Amino acid sequence: MEYRNPLPTVDLIILDEKRGLLLVERKNPPFGWALPGGFVEEGESLEEAARREGEEETSLKITLLSPFRAFSDPRRDPRRHTITYLFIARGEGEARGGDDALSARWFSWPEIEDLVFAFDHRRILESFLRFQEFLRQREISWEEWGRELLE
Amino acid sequence: MEYRNPLPTVDLIILDEKRGLLLVERKNPPFGWALPGGFVEEGESLEEAARREGEEETSLKITLLSPFRAFSDPRRDPRRHTITYLFIARGEGEARGGDDALSARWFSWPEIEDLVFAFDHRRILESFLRFQEFLRQREISWEEWGRELLE
Repeated sequence: MEYRNPLPTVDLIILDEKRGLLLVERKNPPFGWALPGGFVEEGESLEEAARREGEEETSLKITLLSPFRAFSDPRRDPRRHTITYLFIARGEGEARGGDDALSARWFSWPEIEDLVFAFDHRRILESFLRFQEFLRQREISWEEWGRELLE
Repeated sequence: MEYRNPLPTVDLIILDEKRGLLLVERKNPPFGWALPGGFVEEGESLEEAARREGEEETSLKITLLSPFRAFSDPRRDPRRHTITYLFIARGEGEARGGDDALSARWFSWPEIEDLVFAFDHRRILESFLRFQEFLRQREISWEEWGRELLE
């Protein structure tokens, strides 16, 4: 029997105090809004993949603040089993869709309520908001959190 | 060009207040002591893979407390590029090597200093100890941290 493994991917939660959260509109199925991200290639670290995919899909200059967590439920991607590892990041410049992204734009948190998301990205954002609150209550910033956790 | 992806793996930091840290002695190259772990199979979550690999290699009953972080440097495994996702766990019962592990035993932290490790597992343990200290200073337990971060 051939060994089949889930495919590793990365996704980014790109935050901006004024502009909100950056999302991309997918060009290919599954359609909907999504966190920017994509497949990790052999020979690159998760951090390198996150910066590369973030820049390809949003045209922003990406700075990673911290990893967040992985999501690996076999049903999270309708095409095939993927494992995604999330990064919290900042993005400088003008957002513009590229590569697999039809468009890229900033959303305020209330605007996000009504969007249709691809994959499990709504669930990811809910987990992110709860964990951000956990850190906020303890006065820990993402930068501080990430200092020990990034490559 | 064929798309090649790094292979996803899991490794466990199994802790016991009295017995210390559990390590396994590898049966196959690269030789040395290592955290128990192995390849993630298609159709299982990271958490399921971690419990399965932990139990196969140590014979302990595994309870996951929290994910920790990923390590993905392309040079971390001499055979091929792998990404490992770490979990902090407890293990009940008698440790006994199984599957890819020649032996499995508990080590006190001072004993670990002199061991020869396979892969980047010494580096992983150093990162773990620093991050554990970060949590300890803020009075956050692994269980508390992991509550939001496990599937």
